Amino acid sequence: MNLSAEIALAHRLADAARAAIRPHFREPVASERKGDATPVTIADREAEQAMRRILTAEVPQDGVHGEEFGVSEGRSGRQWVLDPIDGTCAFLAGRATFGTLIALLVDGFPVLGVVDQAIQDERWLGVAGQRTTLNGKPVSTRPCRELSDATLATTGPQYFTQAEGDVFMALAGKTDHKRMIMGGDCYNYALLATGFVDVVCESGLKLHDFAALVPVVEGAGGTMCDWNGEPLHAGSDGHVLAIGDPARLEDVLEAVGGH
Amino acid sequence: MNLSAEIALAHRLADAARAAIRPHFREPVASERKGDATPVTIADREAEQAMRRILTAEVPQDGVHGEEFGVSEGRSGRQWVLDPIDGTCAFLAGRATFGTLIALLVDGFPVLGVVDQAIQDERWLGVAGQRTTLNGKPVSTRPCRELSDATLATTGPQYFTQAEGDVFMALAGKTDHKRMIMGGDCYNYALLATGFVDVVCESGLKLHDFAALVPVVEGAGGTMCDWNGEPLHAGSDGHVLAIGDPARLEDVLEAVGGH
Repeated sequence: MNLSAEIALAHRLADAARAAIRPHFREPVASERKGDATPVTIADREAEQAMRRILTAEVPQDGVHGEEFGVSEGRSGRQWVLDPIDGTCAFLAGRATFGTLIALLVDGFPVLGVVDQAIQDERWLGVAGQRTTLNGKPVSTRPCRELSDATLATTGPQYFTQAEGDVFMALAGKTDHKRMIMGGDCYNYALLATGFVDVVCESGLKLHDFAALVPVVEGAGGTMCDWNGEPLHAGSDGHVLAIGDPARLEDVLEAVGGH
Repeated sequence: MNLSAEIALAHRLADAARAAIRPHFREPVASERKGDATPVTIADREAEQAMRRILTAEVPQDGVHGEEFGVSEGRSGRQWVLDPIDGTCAFLAGRATFGTLIALLVDGFPVLGVVDQAIQDERWLGVAGQRTTLNGKPVSTRPCRELSDATLATTGPQYFTQAEGDVFMALAGKTDHKRMIMGGDCYNYALLATGFVDVVCESGLKLHDFAALVPVVEGAGGTMCDWNGEPLHAGSDGHVLAIGDPARLEDVLEAVGGH
């Protein structure tokens, strides 16, 4: 699959989102609560609108699925999945670890993903069958010889149910838990793709939260799957694992599944 | 107290730490485990040594208390307290939210504090009786009308004992917990001093973890104390609260103490 036109388009989408987000960072931004009480800001909305305008003009045959403005059906079998600010809480707190997520799905499976950090000028690009890049330079996950050496990351225990938290703790106990880091949202997966985090374990993710991460992590040599080891796709249930060294996949699945 | 010479010295210390840390960020850095199994890297050691060299040459009469190389007694009643990398786990994971902490204590109480983020070029400076600055520009905490509006931050639940975690959860339940953020180390306090976080609650902090934060937070209009509301000093037990709006101090103390 030649995706060069789609890659160029994804860069233009990310540029547009950056331009919409930057003026609002570390400014007093009014936020509202969505139906699930999570916050949303004018920056989320303006960034998604800027991306949707480009998609409507350039690829009107493709579907669009955005966090803030919902689904527009397409007729091409292709769908752009957008999360204008993944990590709105971090954004509101002034922490430059949120990201704009852009994914292209073909027949429900992600084949292109962008993680863009607007403030630190960092853009990860993953494309099926290609090496993942950070600002144009190739990146790789790192080897992890034993699960007990692994650095584990998750955004926070507040996103787990009690039962999910128990599973996470079972996994954490088998990793190098003195190096575990909390917070981070999509940025943890980008750091895993760059060789500085070994495992990310989360639940409750929506399609717009994980779709872009799959090509980024897999193109860097890592693996993503759900908590049962199944590939992630449009119908996945939001239990997400990323493993930098695929040789540790079975150990991680045993830790989360054996509970 | 005229601290202009000490302020200039603190800037030179932070510059030296930055120069030692930057070459190691997002490079494969060997890390070792300290006695408590927490990681330490060559960047921590080189940054502290660089700062100690300057202090030994310029203020040999002052004491030095560093995280990695211990205590050198002084004879001036003044002590420089250094944490070369607060947030070594974040540093190792490639996240630019760690900080170099530099404090000057007079008779055991912090009168000057620096939080320096070497990668994002951010330096917060707090001095007793002066307005806190970020890269030379004044910053302030923000008002918080109700505790239920507050954004709460903490580095992670893994640093709490079970009982401390219960206290934290009691506090979290009274804040806007949909905006709570995990991770962050010293950076959370700097963001509180800049008006983007309302409350930070942590335990197990050592003098080198909290001494520099006190002048930064208080010079921005906030309050720092232990979980009993007592001022922080060299003998504090490591239970730390930062509150951006002092009008919420009693609410926070009630939430943590009433448990």
